[in-house]
Amino acid sequence: MIIRKAAAIFNQRGYSGARLSELMEETGLEKGGIYRHFDSKEDLAVAAFDYSWSEIKQRRLAMLDEISTPLGKLRGMIDNFVTRPSAVPGGCALMNTAIDTDDGNPVLRAHARAALHEWLHYLEELVRQGIAQGEMDAKASPAGIASIIVATLEGSLMMSRLSGNRTAMTQAREHLHKTLDSVATK
Amino acid sequence: MIIRKAAAIFNQRGYSGARLSELMEETGLEKGGIYRHFDSKEDLAVAAFDYSWSEIKQRRLAMLDEISTPLGKLRGMIDNFVTRPSAVPGGCALMNTAIDTDDGNPVLRAHARAALHEWLHYLEELVRQGIAQGEMDAKASPAGIASIIVATLEGSLMMSRLSGNRTAMTQAREHLHKTLDSVATK
Repeated sequence: MIIRKAAAIFNQRGYSGARLSELMEETGLEKGGIYRHFDSKEDLAVAAFDYSWSEIKQRRLAMLDEISTPLGKLRGMIDNFVTRPSAVPGGCALMNTAIDTDDGNPVLRAHARAALHEWLHYLEELVRQGIAQGEMDAKASPAGIASIIVATLEGSLMMSRLSGNRTAMTQAREHLHKTLDSVATK
Repeated sequence: MIIRKAAAIFNQRGYSGARLSELMEETGLEKGGIYRHFDSKEDLAVAAFDYSWSEIKQRRLAMLDEISTPLGKLRGMIDNFVTRPSAVPGGCALMNTAIDTDDGNPVLRAHARAALHEWLHYLEELVRQGIAQGEMDAKASPAGIASIIVATLEGSLMMSRLSGNRTAMTQAREHLHKTLDSVATK
């Protein structure tokens, strides 16, 4: 419960913007209560990020088990990103933490970097399987396609949140499906 | 001078993370000196963002006057984004401010939103000219292409900064040139 409430605060306010007073108020714990569970603010922020990332993965990977082909899973992940927002308020914790810590907390940053690499690896592996199973062009670059999917989705999420409408995410979804069409063999 | 130094601090620390003590130290001004020029921290942050954005535009639009075709200018802007980093430390002020303020300062956020729309409008106008001059397919969507260029570049910049290497930006550049190839008439 502490972690879930803290995750919402860190994701909305950033690491330095998340004040202990607000964390105490939202979790209903006194300072001593928080520090009985966590060694430091950094320790709590890392636990909050890891919680947010596990929530994000659950949304982005939802129902993909029921899709039998690698290309179908790639398309499903794109659709999930666009249609199933994170359960943790404040947008994508990966992007928020990447931006918030890029001149800041190195421990938190390492967790964000590991999350990015985990996501890229998952997508690359799907492209590799798609090529091996003959549904994607052997000339398709697994690393290139994974990178473009993540960049386009994350960039469009930033734009949609800033503009206050879903246009950029809808355009990203359409563009990424077309990009996958261009490397599909059938 | 105050604005230039403040821009670096706000861009690296975010709005709530930028402490008055650091702003005083970097600008060499006392609190009273800063507040003689600016009504509030928000007022200084807005001036800093506007300065950062004008620096960014200068880099992204560099040398584009010397390119005669709209499609060439679109390609030149993509190359500028990837090869000419902003003069203000801390990454892209537009993305940083979008992420930093999405649950925070509404005035600063309005400036970031205006900057995004200005950039999108510039790109859309180039696509429209490219279609009018027959170098781009009449079926190309000006708003769609502009949106994909911004999303892919900004998302890849976040990834490159988080990963500590230029791979994602290089892949974004290659992908966007291919995307433009697909709507070029020759």
